[in-house]
Amino acid sequence: MKVSVIGTGSFGTSLSIVLNDNQNQVLLYGRNHDTVNEINNSHTNERYLKHIQLDENIVATTSLTDAIEHADALVLAVPVSAMRTVATDIHEHLKTLNKQVLVVHVAKGLELNSYKRVSEVLSEVFDDTTVSDICVLSGPSHAEEVAEKQPTTVSVASINVDGAKIMQDIFMTDYFRVYVNSDLIGVEIGGALKNIVALAVGALSGYGFGDNPKAAVITRGLHEIAALGTKLGANPLTFLGLSGMGDLIVTATSQHSRNYRCGQMLASGLSLEEAVDQMGMVVEGVNTTRAAYELSSRVDVEMPITKTLFGYLFEGMNEDEAFQALMQREKTSESEGLKQLLENQIKNSHS
Amino acid sequence: MKVSVIGTGSFGTSLSIVLNDNQNQVLLYGRNHDTVNEINNSHTNERYLKHIQLDENIVATTSLTDAIEHADALVLAVPVSAMRTVATDIHEHLKTLNKQVLVVHVAKGLELNSYKRVSEVLSEVFDDTTVSDICVLSGPSHAEEVAEKQPTTVSVASINVDGAKIMQDIFMTDYFRVYVNSDLIGVEIGGALKNIVALAVGALSGYGFGDNPKAAVITRGLHEIAALGTKLGANPLTFLGLSGMGDLIVTATSQHSRNYRCGQMLASGLSLEEAVDQMGMVVEGVNTTRAAYELSSRVDVEMPITKTLFGYLFEGMNEDEAFQALMQREKTSESEGLKQLLENQIKNSHS
Repeated sequence: MKVSVIGTGSFGTSLSIVLNDNQNQVLLYGRNHDTVNEINNSHTNERYLKHIQLDENIVATTSLTDAIEHADALVLAVPVSAMRTVATDIHEHLKTLNKQVLVVHVAKGLELNSYKRVSEVLSEVFDDTTVSDICVLSGPSHAEEVAEKQPTTVSVASINVDGAKIMQDIFMTDYFRVYVNSDLIGVEIGGALKNIVALAVGALSGYGFGDNPKAAVITRGLHEIAALGTKLGANPLTFLGLSGMGDLIVTATSQHSRNYRCGQMLASGLSLEEAVDQMGMVVEGVNTTRAAYELSSRVDVEMPITKTLFGYLFEGMNEDEAFQALMQREKTSESEGLKQLLENQIKNSHS
Repeated sequence: MKVSVIGTGSFGTSLSIVLNDNQNQVLLYGRNHDTVNEINNSHTNERYLKHIQLDENIVATTSLTDAIEHADALVLAVPVSAMRTVATDIHEHLKTLNKQVLVVHVAKGLELNSYKRVSEVLSEVFDDTTVSDICVLSGPSHAEEVAEKQPTTVSVASINVDGAKIMQDIFMTDYFRVYVNSDLIGVEIGGALKNIVALAVGALSGYGFGDNPKAAVITRGLHEIAALGTKLGANPLTFLGLSGMGDLIVTATSQHSRNYRCGQMLASGLSLEEAVDQMGMVVEGVNTTRAAYELSSRVDVEMPITKTLFGYLFEGMNEDEAFQALMQREKTSESEGLKQLLENQIKNSHS
């Protein structure tokens, strides 16, 4: 299959390795001339993937037209904030070429202000004449480890399911296992919101807290993500899967995660601006915290961890107040929320 | 409340700190005279809890009679393999004293050969005249961090629910948050079987695998635990909670976990016997792997990770074969198993 990867960041580049290993013809598109030249000449992308040698068959271009002309399938590996603009450009090119492609995105977040999932944004931009199906690929997959060909498992979901099965064929290798999941909403919400928890846990770690409190925040964090997701139509059990707890674990327990590291920097005393600057890469959790907080108010789902992190990031709440807000909740029954989720699900499955 | 803690290991001792902080009168029972003397004289338990100073109000005894006479409530903090014998002794003492107590256990495993959960074992030993309710307390709670008063969250469940609420009152402090859960089976199965996954992930880590494969095994591991638990009558959503994914995360991502460390030792070339010897503490995951493997065959639930670990621990399977068995599964749909769980649950909730 001819596949163009849009975005020469760490994940886009690592996926091009997988796609190339699986006998696809891969073209990487990026706007940065230096990066594109480095990929074509040195077969490296040192800024995003240190010490990784790319196969010579992986070619890069700064021409979006070339990338679209090449592709039967497109991998959108750009930040959420750029997604609508990039997709609009692609849609115009596809219209001009009178061409239809299959699309998968790998972005993790919600669109600011609209609170939309990425597949919702994409389905507003594309139509049936330009795109046959919109998929998401998500799961516990640090780009660095994918590039090292560490055994990795991900979920793929799509609007029509058929697209997800084709994507499974395109990506599946010995070391990159792709599971089809029919719950598009659940897969996207899990991937988007885990960055909130990663930021919070990174901050806890920076303040010197141990594994017990971190596990508490991870677990209660997934619980509130599942609550929001279920309210939006997801299957709560999706959050038990690779795109839910799987992705949350690698993101919230690992130095590889930029959201986790950003949380640590905040705890060390940097301002939000300084921390994001120092990262030098997009920290999706920051915008996602705002989007999820506002969305949760709109659809009336309690998200105490998200709310606390929102206060800490944007409203000058200090760490003591944040910590008090997290821990000083009333004695409660763990299963009430979970039961509610299940009852919603049963209701949905019968309607 | 007067509470006796049976067992002076790391978790029993750390819980005595919590109970004492919550204004209970705590008596610790242990068989080891040196440990008991150390607790009473130096107010330490260096073998199990390094660098922790105990409050002088925490008193220990080698007399089980004294411990039973003292108690309104009993905390059973002994290994699963000792549970039936210890409980039988306690039952006899209670009979003799014509006394009824509330019991909570904190053991994580299944009884060898019978494959019974600990509360099942206890309900065979005790009766209404000696014990008012049998509870389990479980969650992400490394003993060392509980002793340091790191913020910790746990679930408590019981046969009659009333007992769980009383236990919540007995244990709940600022730093030790107790959530009541009505799903006794789910809470016990999650706690028991997570040690299997911790052993497997420890071994992966020892062989040099990264975060992506570890997250895959943790996620798919919880998935098969949830499948078994649901077959036995648990609510699958309990595995999203503190006693499920919460406990699994701290156990399978932390050097504090003896099961994780045992897995690492096996990977370094030690035999199972040598590794368990070197640990110097009970490694519940070893027996639990056997019990869960046999139980899964009996009730016909697929548990590929448990099955592979069983082969690796007991049947001479080497690491390459084990790794092949884990990774070389057919392309599959992630949600099939999850959907099955939910359908079972819906069926159960309607019957």
